[in-house]
Amino acid sequence: MHPSSLCCDGGVSEAGTTRRRGRRPAGQETREALLAAARTEFSERGYDQARVRSIAAAAGVDPAMVNHWFGGKERLFAAALDLPIDPNYVIAQILGGGPDEAGRRIVRTFLSVWDPHQGGPFTAILRSVSSHEQAARMMREFVTDRIFGPLAASLEADQPRLRATLCGSQVVGLGMTRYVIRLEPIATADVETLVAAIGPTLQRYLTGELT
Amino acid sequence: MHPSSLCCDGGVSEAGTTRRRGRRPAGQETREALLAAARTEFSERGYDQARVRSIAAAAGVDPAMVNHWFGGKERLFAAALDLPIDPNYVIAQILGGGPDEAGRRIVRTFLSVWDPHQGGPFTAILRSVSSHEQAARMMREFVTDRIFGPLAASLEADQPRLRATLCGSQVVGLGMTRYVIRLEPIATADVETLVAAIGPTLQRYLTGELT
Repeated sequence: MHPSSLCCDGGVSEAGTTRRRGRRPAGQETREALLAAARTEFSERGYDQARVRSIAAAAGVDPAMVNHWFGGKERLFAAALDLPIDPNYVIAQILGGGPDEAGRRIVRTFLSVWDPHQGGPFTAILRSVSSHEQAARMMREFVTDRIFGPLAASLEADQPRLRATLCGSQVVGLGMTRYVIRLEPIATADVETLVAAIGPTLQRYLTGELT
Repeated sequence: MHPSSLCCDGGVSEAGTTRRRGRRPAGQETREALLAAARTEFSERGYDQARVRSIAAAAGVDPAMVNHWFGGKERLFAAALDLPIDPNYVIAQILGGGPDEAGRRIVRTFLSVWDPHQGGPFTAILRSVSSHEQAARMMREFVTDRIFGPLAASLEADQPRLRATLCGSQVVGLGMTRYVIRLEPIATADVETLVAAIGPTLQRYLTGELT
């Protein structure tokens, strides 16, 4: 589900239903301006330091527009990263096949979200992570705090943080080799080949023996 | 071939032209100082942001020395990134403990080479790879052609190229998380912790079942 579909009750929707007159920039423009400003703010300041008020100001709209369009900071962050929805939903989806399927589901989810955009904003973060400390911080938060940390914790294995970052290392490496370095055959391998090859790695990082 | 072998003491530069006598510091010291400064500059700023003038200043020499010794920024970059060790030696070392130890030995070798330099030239490549096609190409060559390709081929498993690039994805991800993103606890974990955690991943990628 696209995040914009989560919050379109104010008379404005991406699908082009009725739009209230007199509202300023009204519509997709506002949303896109907020997303652009959010990517800058989040990548410069990190999630915790980022301020909704600053994002709205940079986009030239009222801060209420963030709630209107995204339902809050968390979902704005997810939308800015082009996650399919918020991280909690992703985690639920990954765990939906049971704990033994989590590793494969991570690979499938990750690729299904990013492949259509050739890595999309994830690649943008990877590309900027090297030169901007802020992007590195954003990646740290994304990897450990928002996705893999809660995932590892929910599986109740020992050393959840080490497990989370091990997952991060493999997913970041997959993103780098598939989208940025474009190493063949990983760059063009079909999804199920990579699910079969890399899923067990993530599964072991999440629930297996690490010593 | 180590780049120093391209332009040693014979008064012949990389381009093969004769070097003028009486030119200042004239020798390996200047060249080494430039290489050391270049590794720092490239790994901190990436290729595009790195400035020849800053590298020369850090090395305490005139910027013209960069052209003199390397023929420009591009070649300085290539020279700075050259591997400190001969890939064949690395491969022999990895295979020295027998095929079942290769995965752990990759992690140990990789970390023992790069840890003392906080990732060193490898980090420089990673930081530049996103913005600079040459760095991406070097990484592709390093990963598949020089290290993991021959390694996978020598272990005679099926799909050697897929195996090689899977190893690459995990090693690149390890380098990214330990040196560039600095994800804790991976950033400061001791070597044997990472050998135990990541070694089996590489072992499976090299010789295990992938489907």
